[in-house]
Amino acid sequence: MTIQVDGWFTEEWPGEKSAISLKLVRKLHEEKSRFQRIEVFETETFGKLLTLDGLVMVTDRDNFIYHEMISHPALYTHNNPERVLIVGGGDCGTLREVLKHPEVKTVHMVEIDERVTRVSEMFYPDLTESNGDPRVEFFFEDGIRWVEQAASGSYDVIIVDGSDPEGPAAVLFSEDFFRHCHRVLSASGVMVGQSESPLFHLELIKHYHATAKKVGFQDVASLHFQQCTYPSGWWTVTVAAKDQSVAQFREQDAAKRPFKTRYYTPAIHRAAMAQPAFVEEALK
Amino acid sequence: MTIQVDGWFTEEWPGEKSAISLKLVRKLHEEKSRFQRIEVFETETFGKLLTLDGLVMVTDRDNFIYHEMISHPALYTHNNPERVLIVGGGDCGTLREVLKHPEVKTVHMVEIDERVTRVSEMFYPDLTESNGDPRVEFFFEDGIRWVEQAASGSYDVIIVDGSDPEGPAAVLFSEDFFRHCHRVLSASGVMVGQSESPLFHLELIKHYHATAKKVGFQDVASLHFQQCTYPSGWWTVTVAAKDQSVAQFREQDAAKRPFKTRYYTPAIHRAAMAQPAFVEEALK
Repeated sequence: MTIQVDGWFTEEWPGEKSAISLKLVRKLHEEKSRFQRIEVFETETFGKLLTLDGLVMVTDRDNFIYHEMISHPALYTHNNPERVLIVGGGDCGTLREVLKHPEVKTVHMVEIDERVTRVSEMFYPDLTESNGDPRVEFFFEDGIRWVEQAASGSYDVIIVDGSDPEGPAAVLFSEDFFRHCHRVLSASGVMVGQSESPLFHLELIKHYHATAKKVGFQDVASLHFQQCTYPSGWWTVTVAAKDQSVAQFREQDAAKRPFKTRYYTPAIHRAAMAQPAFVEEALK
Repeated sequence: MTIQVDGWFTEEWPGEKSAISLKLVRKLHEEKSRFQRIEVFETETFGKLLTLDGLVMVTDRDNFIYHEMISHPALYTHNNPERVLIVGGGDCGTLREVLKHPEVKTVHMVEIDERVTRVSEMFYPDLTESNGDPRVEFFFEDGIRWVEQAASGSYDVIIVDGSDPEGPAAVLFSEDFFRHCHRVLSASGVMVGQSESPLFHLELIKHYHATAKKVGFQDVASLHFQQCTYPSGWWTVTVAAKDQSVAQFREQDAAKRPFKTRYYTPAIHRAAMAQPAFVEEALK
């Protein structure tokens, strides 16, 4: 639910009877695409805000944390991530981080709503600065069908950068989808997906782990980080690996990464895998 | 600033043109003490909410994170924390955690506003359950004066569980206060204080580190954690040690802790000390 009153944007966190508000300067853009309502606002202190159906997707101020944490840990978990699939991620912030890795040879970027990408190109030149990289191909299609039809073993890393599991993105958390992801990954493939808030959605995180293990992933771990403008300010991504421990990653390569990060470091990567007592208990 | 509209409590995060809101069931208590306005609300999903001058202090749902993180890391950093001073912390949640440590022989709890403690005893029986412990003495006095007048070397651990540095608690971040804390700590003493949000108050964290080093602490480290109902949802405590590295703590003892925690584990303790790239850069 979204409310705009007296120059404030408010997102009521679904089901949680709590909300975050950002003071607006003005609305920069509004359209109804085939799939959703897309809006861009200029805020007083968070830069530009992109919302889909009234839910915060990106702010200039804090998106770096999410985008770095959904990409670098998974890519440094895989030994040689050459072929990457991104499902969702229309704002292209994840794509930009992925393309910073020199090992990456091809990225298939499968976003159902082309308008999200086009609007992001208009308002987020930084997030979309790598869209012309020759290694990336855009497919504005249903990511679920894409994965169903993809050849077995055709990707090294799959990044699921989708919306909340309420509504159309629910299927991104389904056993069927996970099974296809497992199938289309190469033998040492790694999958990562956004997996919501431990404070608000602990059952979903449990379900994510159980489902990933059920379809055959050898190891699964959730990584915790702060994300001010997402529900509860606490977010996770969950990494699943086909044939290795997720605790193992290319720490030396991460330490010598040939690009700048604002949140990610190898120490943060390791630290993000520490589980608070109540999460550890829930995942036992 | 606080607003109550249509059954919602809203805290506008000072200076940040952003806000958190919690849906209320009803107001349970309101009074004006000598120092501040104290209110208690029943919320729909965060249990009871305690506010001081309209700012969130405690909710039933998420206070465990803050209270565990401001107490256990500091106590496990000290080799034998027998004598503890708590400055502030009137809700007694920190006191409860401190008293779980069998090494602790005496706690001086110095809170300026007795009414905060009395109101907490009325509405938070869990947080105040240890108030009758014979090891604790309450002093409803100015913590700054207390530290100024305390004998040198008289405490092993000082916990500064105060309000934001705007307003009367500003002096808790002053060089003079830090110098007295250093003086009243024993040779291997450890100090910890709440140190706000890296996203919103990075300059304050830099100032905290610089001041602690200036007055003679050998090592200083900020520990990061999620705190949904505090500004930005991201909070820190900063630990300063007189004669050791803060990275060293009694990890074996923490692993065999004779009490239950919901957030803290030794792995979380270590992980919380990992610095995001932009924080590491700022603290260089």
